[in-house]
Amino acid sequence: MAGNSFGTQFRFTTWGESHGPAIGVVVDGVPSKIPLGEADIQNFLDKRRPGQSRYTTQRQEADQVRIMSGVFEGVTTGTPIQLLIENTDQRSKDYRNIADRFRPGHADYTYWKKYGVRDYRGGGRASARETASRVAAGAVARKVLGTRIAIRGALVQIGPHAIDRAGWDWAQTEANPFWCPDAAMAARWAEYLDGVRKAGSSAGAVIEVVASGVPAGLGEPIYDKLDGDLARAMMTINAVKGVEIGAGFAAASLSGEVNGDEMRMRDGKVEFLSNNAGGILGGISTGQDIVVRFVVKPTSSILHPMRTVDSEGNDVEIATHGRHDPCVGIRAVPVGEAMMACVLADHLLRARAIGVDGA
Amino acid sequence: MAGNSFGTQFRFTTWGESHGPAIGVVVDGVPSKIPLGEADIQNFLDKRRPGQSRYTTQRQEADQVRIMSGVFEGVTTGTPIQLLIENTDQRSKDYRNIADRFRPGHADYTYWKKYGVRDYRGGGRASARETASRVAAGAVARKVLGTRIAIRGALVQIGPHAIDRAGWDWAQTEANPFWCPDAAMAARWAEYLDGVRKAGSSAGAVIEVVASGVPAGLGEPIYDKLDGDLARAMMTINAVKGVEIGAGFAAASLSGEVNGDEMRMRDGKVEFLSNNAGGILGGISTGQDIVVRFVVKPTSSILHPMRTVDSEGNDVEIATHGRHDPCVGIRAVPVGEAMMACVLADHLLRARAIGVDGA
Amino acid sequence: MAGNSFGTQFRFTTWGESHGPAIGVVVDGVPSKIPLGEADIQNFLDKRRPGQSRYTTQRQEADQVRIMSGVFEGVTTGTPIQLLIENTDQRSKDYRNIADRFRPGHADYTYWKKYGVRDYRGGGRASARETASRVAAGAVARKVLGTRIAIRGALVQIGPHAIDRAGWDWAQTEANPFWCPDAAMAARWAEYLDGVRKAGSSAGAVIEVVASGVPAGLGEPIYDKLDGDLARAMMTINAVKGVEIGAGFAAASLSGEVNGDEMRMRDGKVEFLSNNAGGILGGISTGQDIVVRFVVKPTSSILHPMRTVDSEGNDVEIATHGRHDPCVGIRAVPVGEAMMACVLADHLLRARAIGVDGA
Amino acid sequence: MAGNSFGTQFRFTTWGESHGPAIGVVVDGVPSKIPLGEADIQNFLDKRRPGQSRYTTQRQEADQVRIMSGVFEGVTTGTPIQLLIENTDQRSKDYRNIADRFRPGHADYTYWKKYGVRDYRGGGRASARETASRVAAGAVARKVLGTRIAIRGALVQIGPHAIDRAGWDWAQTEANPFWCPDAAMAARWAEYLDGVRKAGSSAGAVIEVVASGVPAGLGEPIYDKLDGDLARAMMTINAVKGVEIGAGFAAASLSGEVNGDEMRMRDGKVEFLSNNAGGILGGISTGQDIVVRFVVKPTSSILHPMRTVDSEGNDVEIATHGRHDPCVGIRAVPVGEAMMACVLADHLLRARAIGVDGA
Repeated sequence: MAGNSFGTQFRFTTWGESHGPAIGVVVDGVPSKIPLGEADIQNFLDKRRPGQSRYTTQRQEADQVRIMSGVFEGVTTGTPIQLLIENTDQRSKDYRNIADRFRPGHADYTYWKKYGVRDYRGGGRASARETASRVAAGAVARKVLGTRIAIRGALVQIGPHAIDRAGWDWAQTEANPFWCPDAAMAARWAEYLDGVRKAGSSAGAVIEVVASGVPAGLGEPIYDKLDGDLARAMMTINAVKGVEIGAGFAAASLSGEVNGDEMRMRDGKVEFLSNNAGGILGGISTGQDIVVRFVVKPTSSILHPMRTVDSEGNDVEIATHGRHDPCVGIRAVPVGEAMMACVLADHLLRARAIGVDGA
Repeated sequence: MAGNSFGTQFRFTTWGESHGPAIGVVVDGVPSKIPLGEADIQNFLDKRRPGQSRYTTQRQEADQVRIMSGVFEGVTTGTPIQLLIENTDQRSKDYRNIADRFRPGHADYTYWKKYGVRDYRGGGRASARETASRVAAGAVARKVLGTRIAIRGALVQIGPHAIDRAGWDWAQTEANPFWCPDAAMAARWAEYLDGVRKAGSSAGAVIEVVASGVPAGLGEPIYDKLDGDLARAMMTINAVKGVEIGAGFAAASLSGEVNGDEMRMRDGKVEFLSNNAGGILGGISTGQDIVVRFVVKPTSSILHPMRTVDSEGNDVEIATHGRHDPCVGIRAVPVGEAMMACVLADHLLRARAIGVDGA
Repeated sequence: MAGNSFGTQFRFTTWGESHGPAIGVVVDGVPSKIPLGEADIQNFLDKRRPGQSRYTTQRQEADQVRIMSGVFEGVTTGTPIQLLIENTDQRSKDYRNIADRFRPGHADYTYWKKYGVRDYRGGGRASARETASRVAAGAVARKVLGTRIAIRGALVQIGPHAIDRAGWDWAQTEANPFWCPDAAMAARWAEYLDGVRKAGSSAGAVIEVVASGVPAGLGEPIYDKLDGDLARAMMTINAVKGVEIGAGFAAASLSGEVNGDEMRMRDGKVEFLSNNAGGILGGISTGQDIVVRFVVKPTSSILHPMRTVDSEGNDVEIATHGRHDPCVGIRAVPVGEAMMACVLADHLLRARAIGVDGA
Repeated sequence: MAGNSFGTQFRFTTWGESHGPAIGVVVDGVPSKIPLGEADIQNFLDKRRPGQSRYTTQRQEADQVRIMSGVFEGVTTGTPIQLLIENTDQRSKDYRNIADRFRPGHADYTYWKKYGVRDYRGGGRASARETASRVAAGAVARKVLGTRIAIRGALVQIGPHAIDRAGWDWAQTEANPFWCPDAAMAARWAEYLDGVRKAGSSAGAVIEVVASGVPAGLGEPIYDKLDGDLARAMMTINAVKGVEIGAGFAAASLSGEVNGDEMRMRDGKVEFLSNNAGGILGGISTGQDIVVRFVVKPTSSILHPMRTVDSEGNDVEIATHGRHDPCVGIRAVPVGEAMMACVLADHLLRARAIGVDGA
């Protein structure tokens, strides 16, 4: 089956390659009468845009979005919303010299094995450029969710350096080029990444995305559980190799009585005394914050020479010279937020279909 | 949308509650002319069956499967295959006393919030009993995959105790009640779990599932990537809180040149010099082993008393007396294998649809 | 993709062959807290049941339905509802002599070409027996729709004999074995079908299904239009060769000003002055009655000898002796009603998801 | 669920309104390495283009298609293909005066009831302009089908005037502005439609689409039968009110022995002696020509004044002045061909997935 769509009630389909004329996304299933303008979307695209610090690729893309359909006189009409972003700064010739050899750790090889042909320019469809379409879709999803649901992301680890969670300050994520909630760690990362870049290497990262104000009751067990859909959503982002919810892998080491989030009534409402569940039990939201973490591996396009093969079956070496992110995880923060928004919008509409209270 | 189906070309739908008359699964999209008998399925159900050691629930279920449709004269006919398993050992009265209060860390609360009604007997639909249906579907999936693709699972951590990977021996997984590939660690887990059980507590675990012989080219980017589907597949298993592929979360700390799996030609074929990718690049299989790991939180049904609320909004305590797994992760091993088989069968058929070589 | 499911929010999957141990259907996506018992379903199965007059097959099936899951203490729980019907009167040996030859006009040939194997007993999966599962699903759908939406079907033509629409009386449909709303025509059909049966022949029919009380706004353009889904729903019923909405094929001959249903306000509500649209414009319900008609070809299993080939590639003759319907269209009436109910239930829930007024 | 997609393995999603900046379609699931250029698509768009005779709307649209993605160096890459067509001749002011009143027989009313807002310019999303996107998708589908499968359409009835099938000549369909296979009738239609146009009225039509060279075995019973999908495909085309396969509604009057297509071996192959089945039995292709017919109602946008209501709830009259097709059925011929191509491409790929011989 065709694989470029995500969601059911709120469903989007992305298209476009890194070095084609444009990329874009059709968002289908959006309820009518929601105010939506290009500025609402541009705002989030600007956060993801490359070339904003020396820690991300120096490709310069305006990433100007155009609403091509689905909006009339400032509001959604219930028809599909096509969002189009032109590619303006393609330097395809950068890629000629690697057109017939495969970057270790890159989708080069598998696209060629699967399709027998590949658009080698900038990674083609496998490029992180596709994530701009996700961010655009996510901006529409936020409109569907409304203002009671807030979604925020942060970078919590670069290379071996994890933040001190005790010092978490959301305000800091807007104050440094890393979306880092820990000011001290941001400074350390800057230094660390300068070294990585100079060495022609790259670094991995861990991103955390938190959604607040999500009503209880979202998620459709058994196979469309909220956490199942979030895991798929995050894992499909470029270079992601793991996803966890709440306590995640650390839950293996907890005892049942420590892991289970106890409950008490407070002011007539249920209050949880901890959130190891990350806001999801049995695949359904509890009403607590939804907490998702995912790991982004280090970029495979690096200057450091690597052993590989070419499409003719020769042993060769490769070093990638183009403009690349030393830590692609940085730009993954707004992408993770967008995917969270899309999953929640889909499940909010699905919950409404079956009459879930508060959805 | 209805949420009890998984897969597209190879699609299954499960149904049934822990204490209803039966549970089962319809497997749709299976090619015709594949030999299939009840013994092929029973074999895998027997591995998952509870009550086989003192480390799993003492509920005694024969888990006898019946093929109700889709097979004629010993081969599949291309029509849907209904597999039915009767429930025989339900002790619903065990659950009366917790019918109106919520186990911390359990789906009790969220089912009640979402549906406004719940089948409290043994967890109803949220019970791990549903995973028997997955195992049955997985047995059919293995038939679709054929003998060149082998899928094996192992338990690699219980509580804080992880195995020594250097001593990995697949043969050991059949020799102890934990699917543990490390004989020394199996002995230690036995002792540890005895303590956990006596304390009325429970322990988490990490499972690793490996598929060998998978051809390159499976997975449909961008949103139906192989790893995206595996992440969803595993995350929907009861109590799973995290999924990772290959190096997983450890990739955050690796440099690009260490993480990227280098390639060399050997005997006319591409050979990878490592497998940090876990057999998947760009969401497409590379031809290497597919390696997936997932974490199962400690069981929430424990004797240890916990603070909670009831459906009337009172602060209460709860201690669960029924028959429960001190480490539900043990029985998750065959379930993880089954989900791997189902995802691969689906993607194998999808790859054939578009003419991928070797699929 | 697996093809045995229908619907999205309200989705059902049928399974089972004519001569296997049982047939059934899983209904997924049903909202919780709806009262549902076996009697609610049995009522509709009894209407479809064969052997109730000499004009339908003499196979005697109790068609006793069992609810296997999804209902607890008399109400739906929001989990999948498995409905199981045992096969009790299979005379498979009737079919031995046609096991290797193909009935002209029957799915025998195409199943064999597609799957390379076929369950020849009673048509296997292609048997009209499968429609019992649809009727069961339809009974659940009616519960979702509630009492404001009424669905009724009638037979309006058998062979060349069409009813006089001027004399339409719904009460008559319960008073003769043909669901005929025209008492005079019912008598004529009885005589006509006796002749058909004695001649070892069969007759076609046209069924009309009408849904009243459907709110405006159901249907999801452009590809999930309400009429598109109804067309698919009816065309998948055994032996159906055409579907039309409202004026249908007769609309070709109408002028624009005659065909367009004019509107006037009456008592503050919009009233249509005619219903050529059959209650659907632009794929969305108007609030008028939904009117669908479909044609059922004459049964292909007839005594009359026909020229055909066998699976070895020989020219042969075939005459089918089993127990067959001289006019399978009669039993298609409750099936058409059921499919209408399922389509409407699906679209009602979908309309709720996006906040359509009155849905 | 979002409703603007069609197909599973070969899936397309259309977007765009009549008077927005552009319309388009994303085609997903196309196998790689298929030669595809804009000219391949333009060829079919030119056939559908309005303003080519006085019998269709005088709107002048270049309908120039651009391939925005999915094709590299002249061949498909396996990634989604975005096809974009700019709108150039929008005269939105033509519609101001009907912006608040509803054309009888038009989707105006139902869009307003469903969405509470509507893009009144030229019908917005409900405009027949959307069918250009279908034609573009259909051109891609034909490439997937290859040259052995040929798809042709013809107009067989306008108003009450049906062609003489005995004089069917495919060559004639290219020789008159009606795709009429009967030269004598084409002349009569010309005269008839001149009268219709002068009267400010409109006429309905019946279209027949035939696919030759389709292998046996396409179609996925029970709910994704080939005829079920064709029925849905055609019924979703603007103004279609009925669909039939092969003998269609006429089958009601045939006896079983006349309706069943007898078979004989000829030159080692099965030959059918008639084609009442229209090439489909049990929802699966037989290898004969696939024959589908559908009816298009007369255009609802007519000069003739009609009684209606406005959005304020007043009784008013309406007469539509814009540029409209007196018989929209004419331009539906290439659209019907395109939908046939898309359905067959989808089922061809699905048949390959499960290993159907010859697919």
